[in-house]
Amino acid sequence: MTEITTAQPRSLTTALDIPRPPDLSWYVQARQPVGYEVNLTRGLLNPDNPALARSVGADGYTSVRTLVVVDKVVDGLYGKALRAYFDAWRVDARWKVMPGDEDTKNLEQAVEVTAAMTEMGILRRTEKVVVVGGGVLMDVVGLAASLYRRGAPYVRVPTTLVGQVDAGVGVKTGVNHGTHKNRLGTYFAPEITLIDPEFLRTVEPRHIANGLAEIIKMALIKDASLFRLLEETVAGIDGDALADCGPAMGEVVSRAIAGMLDELEPNLWEWVLERSVDYGHTFSPSLELRADPPLLHGEAVAVDMAVCVALAVGRGLLSQADAERALGLMVAARLPIAHPVFTPELLEVGLADAVKHRDGLQRLPLTNGIGDCVFVNDVTGDELRRALEFVHAYAGTRDGVRDGS
Amino acid sequence: MTEITTAQPRSLTTALDIPRPPDLSWYVQARQPVGYEVNLTRGLLNPDNPALARSVGADGYTSVRTLVVVDKVVDGLYGKALRAYFDAWRVDARWKVMPGDEDTKNLEQAVEVTAAMTEMGILRRTEKVVVVGGGVLMDVVGLAASLYRRGAPYVRVPTTLVGQVDAGVGVKTGVNHGTHKNRLGTYFAPEITLIDPEFLRTVEPRHIANGLAEIIKMALIKDASLFRLLEETVAGIDGDALADCGPAMGEVVSRAIAGMLDELEPNLWEWVLERSVDYGHTFSPSLELRADPPLLHGEAVAVDMAVCVALAVGRGLLSQADAERALGLMVAARLPIAHPVFTPELLEVGLADAVKHRDGLQRLPLTNGIGDCVFVNDVTGDELRRALEFVHAYAGTRDGVRDGS
Ligand SMILES: NC(=O)c1ccc[n+]([C@@H]2O[C@H](COP(=O)([O-])OP(=O)(O)OC[C@H]3O[C@@H](n4cnc5c(N)ncnc54)[C@H](O)[C@@H]3O)[C@@H](O)[C@H]2O)c1
Ligand SMILES: NC(=O)c1ccc[n+]([C@@H]2O[C@H](COP(=O)([O-])OP(=O)(O)OC[C@H]3O[C@@H](n4cnc5c(N)ncnc54)[C@H](O)[C@@H]3O)[C@@H](O)[C@H]2O)c1
Ligand SMILES: [Zn+2]
Ligand SMILES: [Zn+2]
Repeated sequence: MTEITTAQPRSLTTALDIPRPPDLSWYVQARQPVGYEVNLTRGLLNPDNPALARSVGADGYTSVRTLVVVDKVVDGLYGKALRAYFDAWRVDARWKVMPGDEDTKNLEQAVEVTAAMTEMGILRRTEKVVVVGGGVLMDVVGLAASLYRRGAPYVRVPTTLVGQVDAGVGVKTGVNHGTHKNRLGTYFAPEITLIDPEFLRTVEPRHIANGLAEIIKMALIKDASLFRLLEETVAGIDGDALADCGPAMGEVVSRAIAGMLDELEPNLWEWVLERSVDYGHTFSPSLELRADPPLLHGEAVAVDMAVCVALAVGRGLLSQADAERALGLMVAARLPIAHPVFTPELLEVGLADAVKHRDGLQRLPLTNGIGDCVFVNDVTGDELRRALEFVHAYAGTRDGVRDGS
Repeated sequence: MTEITTAQPRSLTTALDIPRPPDLSWYVQARQPVGYEVNLTRGLLNPDNPALARSVGADGYTSVRTLVVVDKVVDGLYGKALRAYFDAWRVDARWKVMPGDEDTKNLEQAVEVTAAMTEMGILRRTEKVVVVGGGVLMDVVGLAASLYRRGAPYVRVPTTLVGQVDAGVGVKTGVNHGTHKNRLGTYFAPEITLIDPEFLRTVEPRHIANGLAEIIKMALIKDASLFRLLEETVAGIDGDALADCGPAMGEVVSRAIAGMLDELEPNLWEWVLERSVDYGHTFSPSLELRADPPLLHGEAVAVDMAVCVALAVGRGLLSQADAERALGLMVAARLPIAHPVFTPELLEVGLADAVKHRDGLQRLPLTNGIGDCVFVNDVTGDELRRALEFVHAYAGTRDGVRDGS
């Protein structure tokens, strides 16, 4: 497998004509297969449903151990049911309750999870860590699992809409550091993600809207049918409707997940830096934590998308009418489309930071009509200023309409 | 790529006959290609040698930026030459000097490296981090690079023997946590490792011996010719001999590297838990940091190997004569073969910890004659006691001989 060859300088060429000293070189090559399941199921905490038990290796007869890391709020709401479920399956579940809010999404929390793994002396291949909570806990525990002895298997049970359509379905983990969103993280796939919309019944409306932002994103960049479906149903979308999971809501959620996976799978490690799923994620990472009080992730994404909708109009990529449909859908989803922290100056700062993240180019995804996406690299400060004006004008009009009605 | 199917429970079978609720399931599959070069070169800091410049993307004309993280001792010895080299190639090198000792191998140090990356606003694909130092700094900076925005490219320049034949050539990164060696880490390949034996000229004799332990390991488990070559040359091996890199020393180092890569490449992510390169790494991880003063990594490995040599004798896997050759080689390499912290009780603790790391089985590599390896799973406390007695008896005889000579 290992070839011993005289090294060939690979991609770099030098203009200097310097002889290279004779040397020995090995080139190591391997491919790491990654596979995981994303499972949309009902009645996850009903002992008749074996999905969660199976995910930790339980068969109902032999006792197996697992470390369950639960969001504090979720523990209050579902802790009893979770414990009863694991008891029924003879799972010896060690419990770790943690806060699930953005301002606790830090490296210390991830280290604390690894400490709990050390304390129970988890067997690093067969005994799983299960994370039950929102996007914050998914990201923190995912990072912990990837760091613990260079990787331990984990199972995700996302309990928020963001978790179910976004954070829970990809392979990214991360924590914030300093003022930087997700500055430290890894790519580390769970063994399985188990999604039960039933959890959404108790999610606060603001956090439902937060998740809708990611669903609207998918609609705008690649799924015009999903966009129309959202237009028809958005007024009635709340935690209960999603938890009931009737045909329309089932389609909304599964289209969002399927669309997301479709974009992620060929580019799991983000080598291709033109990512349509980065739509709404260009300015928002820099501004989400800068707002005071901070914006929720999806809220920042919505404000970012509104700017991008306006940028698309300015470039003739979106009609005025479609732009108004897009902004209208966000407003109907109870999402902000403007925020004081999104000034032209800070948008430029955010864009510069995105350029660093995207290796020197803007690679800014914009809608190309509703349901399609293009990338641009030459957005100017002036354009950003005009885009903001467009959004503010729209928001002003709407307020006017609302006041006058 | 993404299939939408009714989920098939994959590997788990349940004895219970519970109907599974109808659900939607996606299976995500991808393969991450990993490739990197390990390059044994001479005159690395000579501006005529383009290897290091190329590794950071320099061509001598365009200015490129890089972050150079240097071991403090190495900076004192080679900092001037390094700076002159980068200047000659018009590399705008930001400098970060860090301690390279085991007791600074912690998460805080890794985070500090990421902070330096943030501060310079490194472009995460084209601008590289270069780490110049021993195994400690390789591991710390490798972890930092893997965590920074979920991965940034880095170049390794190992300056110790351990770094050159072991830490620098694989894909493991890590830091210690609490009393646990390498408790937190990742698998994250460098872009290239550039090895110049010249650095070894200044390495302290104790650290040369430290690296010899890993070379002796390779010889014992897979390379009888290397073992014989070591027997012939070990008395004369020091930093200067290695740096001169004559035919014999060149063969020692390149056989060690080639053997290591040969074992690592098919198992880069350590799915196969039977790893012959774990030879000498069963008891040592638990005991290395417990000794007071702590043992060096290779010293702990040597003491561990001595136990394993004796275990092999007890099982008829190694003749008494070969065992004495093996122990004799370690002693000739100025390595310890016994240490007070290696008591039967602590060996059992160490083995139990290895069992956790190796998912429930000992998977203990033992020599099967010199130059071959087998795995065993049933070593008892009694055997460990007898193995220690064997080693102590050997050591006592040698001391006797030495005293009487
Ligand atoms: N890794 C990824 O690919 C990815 C993708 C999108 C978002 N994210 C991250 O996810 C985070 C946002 O996730 P989030 O919106 O789920 O936030 P969150 O995890 O903070 O959850 C929001 C709030 O809801 C509570 N909660 C959770 N489940 C509940 C339930 N069933 N009922 C009632 N309350 C419940 C939590 O305690 C929390 O207070 C951000 O940090 C973002 O960066 C990651
Ligand atoms: N990642 C892996 O696969 C892997 C493999 C083996 C060992 N390791 C790790 O490597 C570490 C041991 O590495 P190490 O033995 O190189 O220790 P080290 O990095 O601490 O270096 C030893 C000492 O030598 C000094 N030094 C470095 N280069 C020098 C030079 N050219 N001249 C003079 N002094 C120099 C350092 O400052 C330090 O004081 C351990 O933490 C071990 O866990 C990792
Ligand atoms: Zn998002
Ligand atoms: Zn080692």
